[in-house]
Amino acid sequence: MKKGVRAAFQGELGAFSQVAARQLLGERVKVVPCTRFDLVFQHLANREVDAAVVPIENTLHGSIHENYDHLLEFGLEIVAETQVRIVHNLIAAPGVKFGDVRRVYSHPVALNQCLKFFAAHKELERTPYYDTAGSVKMIMEQLPKDAAAIASSIASEQYGAHILRKAIEDDSQNFTRFFLLRRHGSKPEPAGKLGWKTSLVFTTPNKPGSLFKALSVFALRDLNLAKIESRPLRGKPYEYLYYLDFLGKATDPVPQKALAHLEELADMMKILGSYPRSV
Amino acid sequence: MKKGVRAAFQGELGAFSQVAARQLLGERVKVVPCTRFDLVFQHLANREVDAAVVPIENTLHGSIHENYDHLLEFGLEIVAETQVRIVHNLIAAPGVKFGDVRRVYSHPVALNQCLKFFAAHKELERTPYYDTAGSVKMIMEQLPKDAAAIASSIASEQYGAHILRKAIEDDSQNFTRFFLLRRHGSKPEPAGKLGWKTSLVFTTPNKPGSLFKALSVFALRDLNLAKIESRPLRGKPYEYLYYLDFLGKATDPVPQKALAHLEELADMMKILGSYPRSV
Repeated sequence: MKKGVRAAFQGELGAFSQVAARQLLGERVKVVPCTRFDLVFQHLANREVDAAVVPIENTLHGSIHENYDHLLEFGLEIVAETQVRIVHNLIAAPGVKFGDVRRVYSHPVALNQCLKFFAAHKELERTPYYDTAGSVKMIMEQLPKDAAAIASSIASEQYGAHILRKAIEDDSQNFTRFFLLRRHGSKPEPAGKLGWKTSLVFTTPNKPGSLFKALSVFALRDLNLAKIESRPLRGKPYEYLYYLDFLGKATDPVPQKALAHLEELADMMKILGSYPRSV
Repeated sequence: MKKGVRAAFQGELGAFSQVAARQLLGERVKVVPCTRFDLVFQHLANREVDAAVVPIENTLHGSIHENYDHLLEFGLEIVAETQVRIVHNLIAAPGVKFGDVRRVYSHPVALNQCLKFFAAHKELERTPYYDTAGSVKMIMEQLPKDAAAIASSIASEQYGAHILRKAIEDDSQNFTRFFLLRRHGSKPEPAGKLGWKTSLVFTTPNKPGSLFKALSVFALRDLNLAKIESRPLRGKPYEYLYYLDFLGKATDPVPQKALAHLEELADMMKILGSYPRSV
């Protein structure tokens, strides 16, 4: 059924967003790499693709506000979520053996996430590069005999390289959460085993206790929150926008009442989507 | 008085953290660049430097969880905050004129934040590099006749380059918030014009309405929040850690009562520091 879905994502082929796209849409997804996040949203809004896959937060690096901005701006719908564990692999061109490698290319963040590996292999020189998947692309174009790259396994597969060492990252708890986006009115996803989650954005009046009142609409109905985050509003000191996720489906009776109550209290409220909860 | 303060930061000389260090400690600050955030904290804890300057959140990219983790782990104190506007400049080696430039090096994020500039100058090729300040360092080592870099003005000054075009970024609302850290027991900062802010971290029991109850300690005392953010606890599904900033000084009477009340409700609570509010 999911055969041939075209999904846009930001980054080079082989980026972790492509891993997310496969988790969300299956192995046969046709990916459309874009250089920027706004182009990912634009392609979907313009019907050039069927879906978009965007990262929304990372366990080490926090929420990606830019994508929340685009969610508000483009009016697309979140229909699914997934978590991708960031697994780094040492990758080289065919024929290059582990013992041949002297230089290792990758994004500085990825190099810094494999410090135990480098401590155990002092002969390897860390060489910063602008992108993880891009570093695999580069070694497959230039075919250095003594160099390798650090990236996802999908990057190795994408460019026909091979993995010399798997999972060399220090921290196995580094996850990125991705959203699958569709245009409004698309066929809904089937319910999952873990129930539903709803993501929304709202702003409150500039009064003490505004957030406390806003959260009462969930607490008084025993609805569990899964995320809350404030963000200062541009050019409006003391005013905040909130990102909130709660467990439940926006169209079910109790959440519907909570959201109607929140609309009374909030200056602005926008539901970004209800989707089967993952993890 | 601030002469000769030694402050550690993460990044190359000329990074935006160095701009923050100057805003916080004056022009005469002696900066100690480190390759990683944990080393910045370690240097300060080990008394190798007098202060540390770390980014904590960015208006586009969100909170830097890694630095919140280090704040909990190292037990250092936040004594000041500042906001740095991310201003990108086109920078070249002496003698290179704007009309000579064909290639522009910088971190991909910086290149993507100057799209209007590139749209107006289609002759310029964007070339991704691993770091903004590092791209200035590189052009000053290799002295290409036809290349420039995009970075902070301090990077230009640091490496003896010159600025060809100032403030070429698309978005003038891109700010990063930095903390100044000291060891506990350091001389406190003088009060500012905007009053005090306090940052803390707490966890709540896994019960519906826990956060609502926790926020009541502030709402019932008319204390204003300036930030709230949840973060899932590792390996403990449904349990969250919260980052919270409120306006006030932890040792003043009303905040003291609110914090004592929060300690009753929270599983864990840690005050990271009270400091003069900026902006």
